[in-house]
Amino acid sequence: MILISNPDQSQWTEMLKRPVMNTENLFDTVRSIINRVKAEGDRAVLEYEEKFDKAILSSLVVSAEEQAEAETLVSEDLQAAIRLAKQNIETFHAAQRFEGKKVETQPGVACWQKAVAIEKVGLYIPGGTAPLFSTVLMLAVPAKIAGCKEIVLCTPPGKDGKVHPAVLFAAKVAGVSRIFKVGGVQAIAAMAYGTESVPKVYKIFGPGNQYVTAAKQLVSLRDVAIDMPAGPSEVEVLADETANPVFVAADLLSQAEHGADSQAVLVTTSARLQQAVKEEVERQLALLPRKEIAEQSLANSKLIVVRSLEEAIELTNAYAPEHLIIETADYMSVAGKVVNAGSVFLGSLSPESAGDYASGTNHTLPTNGYAKAYSGVSLDSFIRKITFQEIKPEGIRAIGPAIEVMAANEQLAAHKNAVTVRLKELEIEN
Amino acid sequence: MILISNPDQSQWTEMLKRPVMNTENLFDTVRSIINRVKAEGDRAVLEYEEKFDKAILSSLVVSAEEQAEAETLVSEDLQAAIRLAKQNIETFHAAQRFEGKKVETQPGVACWQKAVAIEKVGLYIPGGTAPLFSTVLMLAVPAKIAGCKEIVLCTPPGKDGKVHPAVLFAAKVAGVSRIFKVGGVQAIAAMAYGTESVPKVYKIFGPGNQYVTAAKQLVSLRDVAIDMPAGPSEVEVLADETANPVFVAADLLSQAEHGADSQAVLVTTSARLQQAVKEEVERQLALLPRKEIAEQSLANSKLIVVRSLEEAIELTNAYAPEHLIIETADYMSVAGKVVNAGSVFLGSLSPESAGDYASGTNHTLPTNGYAKAYSGVSLDSFIRKITFQEIKPEGIRAIGPAIEVMAANEQLAAHKNAVTVRLKELEIEN
Repeated sequence: MILISNPDQSQWTEMLKRPVMNTENLFDTVRSIINRVKAEGDRAVLEYEEKFDKAILSSLVVSAEEQAEAETLVSEDLQAAIRLAKQNIETFHAAQRFEGKKVETQPGVACWQKAVAIEKVGLYIPGGTAPLFSTVLMLAVPAKIAGCKEIVLCTPPGKDGKVHPAVLFAAKVAGVSRIFKVGGVQAIAAMAYGTESVPKVYKIFGPGNQYVTAAKQLVSLRDVAIDMPAGPSEVEVLADETANPVFVAADLLSQAEHGADSQAVLVTTSARLQQAVKEEVERQLALLPRKEIAEQSLANSKLIVVRSLEEAIELTNAYAPEHLIIETADYMSVAGKVVNAGSVFLGSLSPESAGDYASGTNHTLPTNGYAKAYSGVSLDSFIRKITFQEIKPEGIRAIGPAIEVMAANEQLAAHKNAVTVRLKELEIEN
Repeated sequence: MILISNPDQSQWTEMLKRPVMNTENLFDTVRSIINRVKAEGDRAVLEYEEKFDKAILSSLVVSAEEQAEAETLVSEDLQAAIRLAKQNIETFHAAQRFEGKKVETQPGVACWQKAVAIEKVGLYIPGGTAPLFSTVLMLAVPAKIAGCKEIVLCTPPGKDGKVHPAVLFAAKVAGVSRIFKVGGVQAIAAMAYGTESVPKVYKIFGPGNQYVTAAKQLVSLRDVAIDMPAGPSEVEVLADETANPVFVAADLLSQAEHGADSQAVLVTTSARLQQAVKEEVERQLALLPRKEIAEQSLANSKLIVVRSLEEAIELTNAYAPEHLIIETADYMSVAGKVVNAGSVFLGSLSPESAGDYASGTNHTLPTNGYAKAYSGVSLDSFIRKITFQEIKPEGIRAIGPAIEVMAANEQLAAHKNAVTVRLKELEIEN
């Protein structure tokens, strides 16, 4: 951990720098996989599954039998936990339903928006030893509430050709339509273009390694939407002298264990807290199974003392953390001044883990400072708002002449004429 | 124009194909301009302005004098039209303000969203003979309502080093903070990375040619958000036998005059209307100043007769037009079944021109079928929704055990521990 005290504002940019993730140098490799899947469909996907996931598959589809079996393999307490989490995620995201207002911008000119679900969405869930069933809930539950008709999930199988049962169980609870044993770039390509087995979708969600990220970027240039750009996960704890160093240390560590490039930052007004957190992190770290990963991440982790709460807030907004935990005496007032963050956790009993799993908020959030321009995944991510307008005679008479003038000045005579023919017709009718 | 009757559904994909816009082959050229602007700032921008826009500039900034002068050069009727349009755009977009609901997902677990403006946004307005002052309104008015602190506008100057007065006037009316004489790739690069004159922004909006599009794509991979992917503009008119062929023809032509690659499509249940529209298009075309452009576009334009209104709607949703004009007897019922479109115009008195200029809806919309996954620009485009959560003792006791189980099963022990330390502390307190 790097202890910093009262850094000058001129040092902030350098101090808050994140690791640079350049995926462009992967584009050639990734593009060749995408192109083969696009051209050859399932055949190419099956080959890549054998090559990259060491899985020899006869079918990409997770069968009804496999789904049923999965349920028997998930412990009762995990089933109950997944159901509780699902319920809270559903409650929070259902409250985000959009009801458009009809607005008369002028008498006779009615305009409104209507929310419509994206018809087909694809969710990517990475494989590996730790199955991200929580991400299944975070993506599929809002997709279901939004009303997406086809919710496709791709996840790499193990060498035995099977998908982790907790992922299958979460998918069932959340309402996923179809699950495919496909991972990596080939999964993104399959969902972007469709194969014999995997349907083409209109938007792809979910985390992944740098190859998956590069694939999502490439297909998003022209062919399919994606949730948001990706980067390593990060947490900032903003704390004053009232914060509990045990909690703060635990929160920093829960970020550090994600990966060597995870960012964990403490910004505090208290030098004593800085020291106490440092000691507490070292103590808790010793007990962690993923100690080595966390240690690598902590090597870049910063514990920063600043002069005032105002400065702490300013620094926070400059950093734009994915997760922000505010442990200060008056955390509500601090929260009111946060303008750049993905998800904010208030007070001493709101750890990031709560939002990661079960409080109801989404855990797919903007990293890498993207919070300055992007929101996390929400119900909005699964809908579009279509605008409608209905203009009556009174309305077109009122705005028609302005349209004619503007169109003429933009040298678009046909645009003008589309109004002129209507105004003429109204005159004749009168 | 291509007249089609009762096409089989198997032909739809081919029939509705859009021109392919591949910008990847421009990436090398575009990347080199971006890199120079990133490295050399204003100096590179000034050189590119001389090279590409033939403008020798002493400063990139539009001065207060230039802005004042512009006002004297815009006719009174255009000023009034711009003000009327601005008012309607403001009324419609102000009604889109988001008020988050606080939700207790369980007792003691409060979650909510708060809308916060993107602090710095950049608007790109292309140059050329037809100044797109309407686009200035469409982007700057919602940015202002959202509360963006810095609204930067870049637009290429003419050879005389000046910006079109209507663009400057619209920018003033809409509340743009600062205007710069920069066009093309160099404008996108300047806003993405900042130069001595041009501030770095977090999100870039606006239309442009294929170089601008490629530049937006490249910078959006890592450094800045963009409004949406770009493609040629398009309109579909969905009409039955009650439609007025004069209006339909005028609407198709108002799209066709945009550019040779613009798409204008009629889908109708009436063979008589198809014929009448064809004749009327030819008649109106002859009178247009941009006749040659429109002719090229019309060569690919399709007038399609289908068997039923249901089929017309299905075809429409498969095409996902940027603009959809519905001229049928019962247009409200048809509108209710539209799920893929950018902006919908209802009835015989709602031409696309109305939404292009002055009804209040936004004209920056998803083209190229992107309406299947993207919304048009709205107030949402200028904000982020940050999630907040505040958990009380009752809440963490209720969800804590579920979080512990889930974290343990994802093999994230530190995530589990962040809850465990808090539950332990609560036990001690009791």
